[in-house]
Amino acid sequence: MKVRFELKEEQEYTLIHFKLKENISPKILKDLKAPIVNPRKGVILSGRGPIWLYSYLVHYYHPTLFIATYDPRLGAVVIESHTPKYEVGNIIK
Amino acid sequence: MKVRFELKEEQEYTLIHFKLKENISPKILKDLKAPIVNPRKGVILSGRGPIWLYSYLVHYYHPTLFIATYDPRLGAVVIESHTPKYEVGNIIK
Repeated sequence: MKVRFELKEEQEYTLIHFKLKENISPKILKDLKAPIVNPRKGVILSGRGPIWLYSYLVHYYHPTLFIATYDPRLGAVVIESHTPKYEVGNIIK
Repeated sequence: MKVRFELKEEQEYTLIHFKLKENISPKILKDLKAPIVNPRKGVILSGRGPIWLYSYLVHYYHPTLFIATYDPRLGAVVIESHTPKYEVGNIIK
């Protein structure tokens, strides 16, 4: 696989870190196998990759409790949420 | 507003280009007014901004026919779609 995913389970979310093995092209989205996670928890996406890959993953994980994307300068920014505990626009330390 | 949106209507999608007036912080997501679009068309997102902003917008526009994110090196990459005419992983010229 051109995208390698590493998962770390935390109590309230799954940390999904991806690594790209080489330059990737959007056509990898056609058969990308993103990891299955527990949708009752949130997801934090992390990794160096293009916006289209993040965008794809954000859509893919939208049934989960919340989604945050990790920004190295800020931390994990909540961008969608189905729980008042994690509000959009907040940063998870 | 710290994020300015410009819309261009094409036949099958709305091109949404954003410009940031200054450095933005994730808390702007708490009251960001992203433009309303016709959900029967797709959306192409374009602009220089952080992954968390794109991620927020991808979630916001998920009811639309399809979403593509514009990559200056590639074109607009389809990252989610509810129509066979625009397939995920394809590039809109």
